[in-house]
Amino acid sequence: MKETQAKKFAVPRGTADILPQEVAVWEKVETTARAILDLYGYREIRTPIFEETELFARSMGQTSDVVQKQMLSLQTQHKGDAEDIAKAGFSLRPEGTAAIVRSYIENSFEKKEGFSKLFYIGPMFRGERPQKGRLRQFHQIGVEAMGPGTASPLVDAEVITLSMQLLKALGINDAKLRVNTLGSVEDKQNFSKYLREQLKPHLKELCEDCQNRFERNVFRILDCKNKGCKAVVEKIHLGSAPLSTESHQYFTEVKTALTDLGIKFEHTPSLVRGLDYYTHTVFEISSDALGSQDALGAGGRYNNLVTQLGGPQVDAIGFALGIERILLAMPKEESPKPQGLDAYIIPLDEPSLKRAFRYLEELRRSVYEFKVKDNIPKNFSIDMGYGLGSLKSQMRAANDRGARFVVILGENELEKEKVTLKDMSTGVQEEKDLNDIGAITVKLAEGSI
Amino acid sequence: MKETQAKKFAVPRGTADILPQEVAVWEKVETTARAILDLYGYREIRTPIFEETELFARSMGQTSDVVQKQMLSLQTQHKGDAEDIAKAGFSLRPEGTAAIVRSYIENSFEKKEGFSKLFYIGPMFRGERPQKGRLRQFHQIGVEAMGPGTASPLVDAEVITLSMQLLKALGINDAKLRVNTLGSVEDKQNFSKYLREQLKPHLKELCEDCQNRFERNVFRILDCKNKGCKAVVEKIHLGSAPLSTESHQYFTEVKTALTDLGIKFEHTPSLVRGLDYYTHTVFEISSDALGSQDALGAGGRYNNLVTQLGGPQVDAIGFALGIERILLAMPKEESPKPQGLDAYIIPLDEPSLKRAFRYLEELRRSVYEFKVKDNIPKNFSIDMGYGLGSLKSQMRAANDRGARFVVILGENELEKEKVTLKDMSTGVQEEKDLNDIGAITVKLAEGSI
Repeated sequence: MKETQAKKFAVPRGTADILPQEVAVWEKVETTARAILDLYGYREIRTPIFEETELFARSMGQTSDVVQKQMLSLQTQHKGDAEDIAKAGFSLRPEGTAAIVRSYIENSFEKKEGFSKLFYIGPMFRGERPQKGRLRQFHQIGVEAMGPGTASPLVDAEVITLSMQLLKALGINDAKLRVNTLGSVEDKQNFSKYLREQLKPHLKELCEDCQNRFERNVFRILDCKNKGCKAVVEKIHLGSAPLSTESHQYFTEVKTALTDLGIKFEHTPSLVRGLDYYTHTVFEISSDALGSQDALGAGGRYNNLVTQLGGPQVDAIGFALGIERILLAMPKEESPKPQGLDAYIIPLDEPSLKRAFRYLEELRRSVYEFKVKDNIPKNFSIDMGYGLGSLKSQMRAANDRGARFVVILGENELEKEKVTLKDMSTGVQEEKDLNDIGAITVKLAEGSI
Repeated sequence: MKETQAKKFAVPRGTADILPQEVAVWEKVETTARAILDLYGYREIRTPIFEETELFARSMGQTSDVVQKQMLSLQTQHKGDAEDIAKAGFSLRPEGTAAIVRSYIENSFEKKEGFSKLFYIGPMFRGERPQKGRLRQFHQIGVEAMGPGTASPLVDAEVITLSMQLLKALGINDAKLRVNTLGSVEDKQNFSKYLREQLKPHLKELCEDCQNRFERNVFRILDCKNKGCKAVVEKIHLGSAPLSTESHQYFTEVKTALTDLGIKFEHTPSLVRGLDYYTHTVFEISSDALGSQDALGAGGRYNNLVTQLGGPQVDAIGFALGIERILLAMPKEESPKPQGLDAYIIPLDEPSLKRAFRYLEELRRSVYEFKVKDNIPKNFSIDMGYGLGSLKSQMRAANDRGARFVVILGENELEKEKVTLKDMSTGVQEEKDLNDIGAITVKLAEGSI
């Protein structure tokens, strides 16, 4: 048979469908995030799903793992209309910051406003080997706070506070915050020199990757998950790494401001983050509810990225939180209950079916008008089965869909120009005029205003 | 100088940034669409941004223009973790239906519910030459109504009505609806035979593309924009094309149901849609407000696509509307006004700055608690400048951000443990206790409940 021979397709490895019953909790995360982001004065920006590959290489560093190993690039099989795509080289965005900075520069934000507070919510992509906590398509909520001369310990403290308050609003009260400073660009150079001096005697104890990192980007050795490398890192006196007085003072003020706002944190000198562009404050948020991939999100200051991408001298700080990680860390009781139907229309015979179908549409229009007029935030949902079935089977369908009311229409009702309205929670039935849609509309809207 | 030498990046051709001032109208379209889709009993589903290329070839037809010329496929530069991506062949989704059907089959929806009403909102991708009305990343709102034995003229009429009501809810009252039927698979075969007979004498008058389409997919000749082809199509008597009695009856009932629901339409026998999978009812919605690319959206029934993709025999109908097209057709007055800040905090000196920063955070937390407790749908937004400036310059900043209130904190206020609250619309000032956040919270929430 044709059906059984046809190939069955599956969702691509490392990606997932979000099915209707799962969408509600995603919407809750997004709605809550928007409320908190609005509260802190952030405005949404949406950039395309793909950008020039070079943008990512220039922002994250040509030698970063993401750019070296994880880019998903675009190609076209065909000459012609899309040939320029293969030529320029585009890739799916692996993170959000580069595109926001690209848009900030391209649209001259710095000329239009002194301080831009931007946020994004959307999918990101990495060509990794799929495993628990690591997806090829994953989703992030992120912010970037940018403007010339806006580097201030208060801004750093606020951005960190925002990330923690966002998690708290989703019921995640046990998130762990670790902070550190990398200092200025000069401090970073001194720090890497210091690190190389400290690590050199132990070079042979490091893994092969880290031996390569020693020259290329010595900071990443601090991040390595390899046991041998971790043991070496523990031996080094990171606390006595060089830092300029100004950078030290800046970081002290960040920590004081965090304490003033009641935000608990741990200062972790080995925290460096994997990307080239960070300077000064960096932070990571983790949760014990997650397994070995325990990061909920991370961020930091990047005062030089905007010039690095061809823009003016603009200070900036941002973070990104992983939505899939948030969902894993959220307490079960935060998941919203499924929304049932407001009404289900039940026709009992052929003539009622046609009238019920029209009634359904009339009721929907009336309820929607009411919602708009009275500015009711709740969405209504009214449905029917479109066919004929026994009253019993249709009542079961209404019940399965969690209907608050059913509206029954049969020979009896049609003759009298009535409908039977049944409240499914109380079982109470009453007759209403078939043509008085307003009466039923008010009934449905009750308790929703 | 380093800055001027750095390459400037631009948004990829055929894509666009949605900047903060534009997001509000996108959100309005999405929120309104969700309200209407909920109203009609549809539930959201989110599938990944990319799928196996073969899925699209099998659903839209290997010979379709989209699959032949417009696929944006993924590649990896690197061996290793993502090698399977190059091997299997993945492409960015050019439309929404194929992935929904893939997910429907993979998750055995037909065993869990008799009739699945699904909707999606999101980006789609085609490697076209960018031009007005044709983007490489564009956005669609679409629905699929699927279930075994659910082919009913009422369902067709409802899906079409839904699409028109969605546009109406966005202020688009002048959308033109054209409908047609392609009949069953057998009818389609007879129709293509009939078309070939009619077109054969005019074969040389057709454009080169259409001469190729003559054997491959004769229907698409009816869609051709070429003047010569249009002239030929006008000569053919499409009205007398063969259609079985059942198919004719089905279509008559669809038209009657549309008329019953007060939906205006035109029966256009030349309307065929470009994709292989359509059977029976097809429809297109256009607007005169758009230019030569005047389609707002289109859809139709596809009772054989699910088996074609390896699933059970399931009837289905759906449509997709283009969000960019909707935005062009929407009346200007439907664009929401920009939301201003609820409050802007103004510190007048160094000691007040630190206290003001803490006050800002206290007020945000208090207002958010109030919002959650009283279930206020509105999001609040409270901000400050994080630095010191003259009262005048800070008042200007508050004004620029559309602040409803400013809260002023200076030496005087700190000493008395007071803040000055100023209503920006009336100019009225009053003193409030610095530590009584509740009083200001209520003030901000006033008129929002």
